[in-house]
Amino acid sequence: MASKPSIPQGTRDFSPAEVSKRQYIIQTIKTNFEKFGFQPIETPSFENSDTLMGKYGEEGDRLIFKILNSGNFFFNKNKIELPQSLEVLQTNSAETINVDQRIELNKFTSRISEKALRYDLTVPFARYVVQHQNEIEFPFKRYQIQPVWRADRPQKGRFREFFQCDADVVGSKSLWQEVELVQLYDTVFTSLGLEGVTIKINNRKILSGIAEVIGASDKLIDFTVALDKLDKIGEDGVKKEMIEKGISETALVKLQPLFSFSGTFADKIKQLSELLASSEEGMKGVEELKFICDNVAELGLSTAILDLDVTLARGLNYYTGAIFEVAAPKTVSIGSIGGGGRYDDLTGIFGLKNMSGVGISFGLDRIYLVLEELQLFPETVAATSKALFVNYGDKEALYASQAIQKLRQENIKVELYPDNVKVGKQFQYADKRLIPFAVIAGDQEIASNSYSLKNLVTGEQVSVDFEGLKNALLA
Amino acid sequence: MASKPSIPQGTRDFSPAEVSKRQYIIQTIKTNFEKFGFQPIETPSFENSDTLMGKYGEEGDRLIFKILNSGNFFFNKNKIELPQSLEVLQTNSAETINVDQRIELNKFTSRISEKALRYDLTVPFARYVVQHQNEIEFPFKRYQIQPVWRADRPQKGRFREFFQCDADVVGSKSLWQEVELVQLYDTVFTSLGLEGVTIKINNRKILSGIAEVIGASDKLIDFTVALDKLDKIGEDGVKKEMIEKGISETALVKLQPLFSFSGTFADKIKQLSELLASSEEGMKGVEELKFICDNVAELGLSTAILDLDVTLARGLNYYTGAIFEVAAPKTVSIGSIGGGGRYDDLTGIFGLKNMSGVGISFGLDRIYLVLEELQLFPETVAATSKALFVNYGDKEALYASQAIQKLRQENIKVELYPDNVKVGKQFQYADKRLIPFAVIAGDQEIASNSYSLKNLVTGEQVSVDFEGLKNALLA
Repeated sequence: MASKPSIPQGTRDFSPAEVSKRQYIIQTIKTNFEKFGFQPIETPSFENSDTLMGKYGEEGDRLIFKILNSGNFFFNKNKIELPQSLEVLQTNSAETINVDQRIELNKFTSRISEKALRYDLTVPFARYVVQHQNEIEFPFKRYQIQPVWRADRPQKGRFREFFQCDADVVGSKSLWQEVELVQLYDTVFTSLGLEGVTIKINNRKILSGIAEVIGASDKLIDFTVALDKLDKIGEDGVKKEMIEKGISETALVKLQPLFSFSGTFADKIKQLSELLASSEEGMKGVEELKFICDNVAELGLSTAILDLDVTLARGLNYYTGAIFEVAAPKTVSIGSIGGGGRYDDLTGIFGLKNMSGVGISFGLDRIYLVLEELQLFPETVAATSKALFVNYGDKEALYASQAIQKLRQENIKVELYPDNVKVGKQFQYADKRLIPFAVIAGDQEIASNSYSLKNLVTGEQVSVDFEGLKNALLA
Repeated sequence: MASKPSIPQGTRDFSPAEVSKRQYIIQTIKTNFEKFGFQPIETPSFENSDTLMGKYGEEGDRLIFKILNSGNFFFNKNKIELPQSLEVLQTNSAETINVDQRIELNKFTSRISEKALRYDLTVPFARYVVQHQNEIEFPFKRYQIQPVWRADRPQKGRFREFFQCDADVVGSKSLWQEVELVQLYDTVFTSLGLEGVTIKINNRKILSGIAEVIGASDKLIDFTVALDKLDKIGEDGVKKEMIEKGISETALVKLQPLFSFSGTFADKIKQLSELLASSEEGMKGVEELKFICDNVAELGLSTAILDLDVTLARGLNYYTGAIFEVAAPKTVSIGSIGGGGRYDDLTGIFGLKNMSGVGISFGLDRIYLVLEELQLFPETVAATSKALFVNYGDKEALYASQAIQKLRQENIKVELYPDNVKVGKQFQYADKRLIPFAVIAGDQEIASNSYSLKNLVTGEQVSVDFEGLKNALLA
């Protein structure tokens, strides 16, 4: 093999420094998940195709990575029927494929592939809950931190393999969980040193209520998709899009208060209550929002800001109650670093009805970028050794190894340079590895049962006994 | 969907208790890897097919999970040629397929699949080293703990998705690394409370030397495969197999000392030196073994036993120097719980020559079974809450939440039962979750700013203020 090997588009190798930083974020999230009573589960990387297919819409189905049946996939129980129109298919491009051809192609695909890589953690979680319902004590507070795979077109910041970090509660409709999830976001981001994130909150019932009172209930999706763009395209842009989608001028007039929606939380609740007075569902949403925000305010947040944002929609079809999204502090321009909400029928797709769930997710890759940009990673995050013992030959290496063994028993990370090469090369290795100390032990040190400890940053060198060495490296 | 959902054959869901136990093992391994100066890397779950194919033999190629090209895989740059003999293939079974048909099938497979799930961590590591050679400071001590996938026929204890935990050093031939890897095994298993494991050691050069002196160099593989079975089929069985493979009676006579190979380490070295006196390679192997074992003995092991086992071969084609295998204490009957060795040309497959490597691996699933059987998991391993706050309604839940918030700031895991349901049901939840305490706070407690703390094991209940609550839960 002549050319340098490479990895598939949209995937990544992580270097030691990168793994350490990612692990620092994951560990912080995990510790706080557990502090809030969430328990870990893990599910297989691939699921049966029928568990995943049809759960993410047509686009999602296309983006699911399918695994070829193993062994000689042609020898299944039955003969595989090749697509009749295969010849035609091959002369066409993907774009011009017609519905019949797609059905035929999908049929063929499903014959040679029965498993697929998971696309998110939510559907496998729903599958897990239904499959293990008799072993689970509800309400079930689970967290899950595992990679997912999507055959998205790779681009900056979008990967084909990435981690999701989810915490969900299933089996209870209590709004105290929404209160706790807001606190959990606050606690995690505060622990990471990322102060001042904005936790935006909205409620699906409020969006439905607004659509109802402006007489656009039948256009709920179009309405919310347009409203969600207020940040990006402004008031005029949103109005233009709504009109294009068939929402009336009269409706837009009723909607006007939303475009100048501001003030304190109490002000916003008041405006919403007036706007939604005639909608039972809308008022239910207002009440839920008020319960969550009042209790969060009563308890107080450490550094995060809770903000009512009526334009927030996210995956609207999915959420039925609260909707959350977290934005990084204003100095960093990046999309949301977390999101979630309540979904009243999580497990219905697998035949278990009436299981309300609520959950939040942390965007590992974006949080990484934010911490990097704001230089919030602790200096100690890298998993590097505290000292390198210089190798002067076998006798000296044994003397060094005796000290190394005792230091490791004190949980101090130290290592021996494996080869007896020029000292300059050994120091260079320590330098590149960011190891702060070198320990030198030759004939003289062995004779006096001591060690020369060199600070590789200042160049300072001292002679110490083992206790002195241990204390210097523990410091 | 009427029937209960399921997961693919050979894969597993992990419950909270299982994840916690697995994480405990992984964390112990990780901490010790880092203490010994190893740094973490991570590679993508799938690699380009040509990175993996042809690296594990024909059997391995068949067991690699292939990923179907995403989108409409029929529409690649070029037209896909279907196997000419597809009709014939479909009427045959997998076993009767001939070479030409297999080639044709493989060609077709490679047209519809260009990526594959990683089969082990070694080949991706070699690929990583070659791809990033200019960023790496050698010797490179890396560890990697990630899942791998194999399309093996699922059976008890053999899975299609499982974790590997590997530590390797690449770029140095120093035998001090073998010394340290033996210490690392000892340290990890001692940390896990698994005392008395046997670390078997051998050397490829000794096996080659033996084959040489008995005049069977051309039958090295057959010879070692047979010798490796001494444990299972006994002396007579091994001899019978060797004769079947064409090894002469005269050779077997020379081999005789190996069948009664015993005594102290020094005795064994003496016997080997006599047997191998005429083989330069064999004597080099003896010298290497002696260096490693002498230095390990000089430094001492905590609880593990190092044992020279001349029958140990493992993947012989792979290793060029030391060979390691770890056996659980005799009371547990299970295969090896770890293994490794030195391979002089790790990265040659990707065009980077002369990179000697040495590494060891820990078998997570088997270690789990051993710890379970010997009841060595600490009781505190489960990620469960320390106390459940009983929910008596919104006013009481707010009072509870205020205490919960402060307790979590002290890193105490506590949770509020989300719903105001019968107390019995809430206690039952605590019981099933193995939560040891319940905190009761109703009107009376709120009025006196106190909490009733109930020990769910003893039934004992005391009234405490917040400090008392905190101290009781910290204990």
